[in-house]
Amino acid sequence: MEIDFGKSGGLVPAIVQDEKTGDVLMLGFMNDLSYQETRRSGDVVFFSRSRNKLWKKGESSGHVLKVRDIRVDGDADTLLIQVEPIGPGVCHEGYRSCFFRSLDQDGKWQLNAERTFTPENVYRAPARLGEAKK
Amino acid sequence: MEIDFGKSGGLVPAIVQDEKTGDVLMLGFMNDLSYQETRRSGDVVFFSRSRNKLWKKGESSGHVLKVRDIRVDGDADTLLIQVEPIGPGVCHEGYRSCFFRSLDQDGKWQLNAERTFTPENVYRAPARLGEAKK
Repeated sequence: MEIDFGKSGGLVPAIVQDEKTGDVLMLGFMNDLSYQETRRSGDVVFFSRSRNKLWKKGESSGHVLKVRDIRVDGDADTLLIQVEPIGPGVCHEGYRSCFFRSLDQDGKWQLNAERTFTPENVYRAPARLGEAKK
Repeated sequence: MEIDFGKSGGLVPAIVQDEKTGDVLMLGFMNDLSYQETRRSGDVVFFSRSRNKLWKKGESSGHVLKVRDIRVDGDADTLLIQVEPIGPGVCHEGYRSCFFRSLDQDGKWQLNAERTFTPENVYRAPARLGEAKK
């Protein structure tokens, strides 16, 4: 069975889940090359849509994602990657997970987590703030 | 903060996670209308890319997904929906989760779960087999 990269212009969504806690940490996109590079290196490598190039998660912060399992859905157009996350979090705003906001009953987004690190200490060069952009 | 439906032609990926087990069950896409309908009804409603219309998950099988929490990522272009899944599974091939295959060391996909239901007993009409297509 081959991964179906055809449905979204050569990209498939790749969900990243912490293998120990079960927390969903983030979602990125992969093209065939980033998928092959993820398999080869053992670290999660996305394709950045905004920068139009491969993007190794953690390349500037050091917060890489060690691949523990790669799963695919029934029609082979979505990946679920279970990882061991290195460092205090994947979110460039300083949270463990990118999904740190939940909808409340009034339709407003509220924080559901506390910061685990100070982004300014991790992403020092302004240019690197783009790191977390998908 | 508004959900950013602009990056992928009006659609955002919506990850569905079992709120109790933490298992990632599936990924679908939502447009603004399906998101509003999800909020209004309390059941997960996707936008089907293959059928080009709203698709309430479980509309034919009865295996609906009851929304318990809606989360959004930092740049507001991906949703994480925590649910109580009704019924034995979301996968139209008979598994609890759509991610029932894992990559082995030889690069082959292997089953990582056992069937929880018999698809033929749930998806009776051939036309309904399209239900699980995104």
